[in-house]
Amino acid sequence: MEFDKFHVEDAEGWELRNRRMLFDHPYIKIEEIDYHTPNRPDTVTWTIALRKSAVCVAPQLEDGRFLLIRQERYPVRRVLWEFPAGQIDLVERRTEQDVILNTVHRELAEETGHGLSAGGEIFPLGYYFSSQGFTDEHIYLFLARGVELLPEGRSPDADENILDCQPFTPEELRAMIRDNEIRDANTLGLFARLCAHGYVS
Amino acid sequence: MEFDKFHVEDAEGWELRNRRMLFDHPYIKIEEIDYHTPNRPDTVTWTIALRKSAVCVAPQLEDGRFLLIRQERYPVRRVLWEFPAGQIDLVERRTEQDVILNTVHRELAEETGHGLSAGGEIFPLGYYFSSQGFTDEHIYLFLARGVELLPEGRSPDADENILDCQPFTPEELRAMIRDNEIRDANTLGLFARLCAHGYVS
Repeated sequence: MEFDKFHVEDAEGWELRNRRMLFDHPYIKIEEIDYHTPNRPDTVTWTIALRKSAVCVAPQLEDGRFLLIRQERYPVRRVLWEFPAGQIDLVERRTEQDVILNTVHRELAEETGHGLSAGGEIFPLGYYFSSQGFTDEHIYLFLARGVELLPEGRSPDADENILDCQPFTPEELRAMIRDNEIRDANTLGLFARLCAHGYVS
Repeated sequence: MEFDKFHVEDAEGWELRNRRMLFDHPYIKIEEIDYHTPNRPDTVTWTIALRKSAVCVAPQLEDGRFLLIRQERYPVRRVLWEFPAGQIDLVERRTEQDVILNTVHRELAEETGHGLSAGGEIFPLGYYFSSQGFTDEHIYLFLARGVELLPEGRSPDADENILDCQPFTPEELRAMIRDNEIRDANTLGLFARLCAHGYVS
């Protein structure tokens, strides 16, 4: 698995000079940060929201259909069809790659009740920034090709309120994206990478 | 132009019961909000970041190539190739559709130095939520098919520090997405919609 090339590395010549915490909350922290960049002589000050990174996974059944979950999303006040996703909790004494992959398997099991089949495989598809002028949040993208129902079924976090989980053909997925029915950055970003890699035509 | 169907309407049965401002800043506001939803009896409390909505546009030249800009992005501490985008400033006594379309033309001119040609056309491609568990931020997506260089050229906002603007063939765009070189939600989300509509194959 070519995992390393997709790691979020520090860009060359960028330097964080000062940081001031403006708002400190378990889920969102706001900092005002002074940056030196390789492209301008002066220091730039920017206000940014700090967030945990996350994973999003496209679970594909043996028959080629993709699993989507239907989840209540409070900040946007609606229920959305989307690929399963979850934040990464860094655990000490484990490599970052292990923690990220564990999060993929955990979200797959909790949100869809599925796990990788004997012949299944996880393909890393890079990452993306959810709003690059506003937050450092980034999401690692994966294809889980060959998933099957686990004996214990779904066990979603009660707070998340996942209402449904259903399989969709690639053609149905494409139509939902075209018609604005799928409208979250995770699912659109993952679909873009699946298209660019030729995993969906 | 079928613009109305892509409007971010209030979803049925959702009700905002109480809101408490936790952090008030010109670019980011944080509120704690109590929601009633159609799917559960109890009220849900969630902490969300409030942000202006924005537009992102894929400018396509007569020869089929797409314009990308190369922009310094402080929160993620790197320079990214991306489609031009900008926040919407609501103006009184104008319809929301007019204001959104004006923002498309403004960003196209400022960031790429291009405008719609005589035979050019703007296609609305819906919207997406950048991080639906965290913020109400949403971005309207557009294809500007048939753009040409304006006599006055680019006039980017100095704070944004746009370093370059170049055309790329659809094949080059696809390769940059596949290789994780393009990695922002705007450009990935717009590419997903372009694929789903058949504007790129």
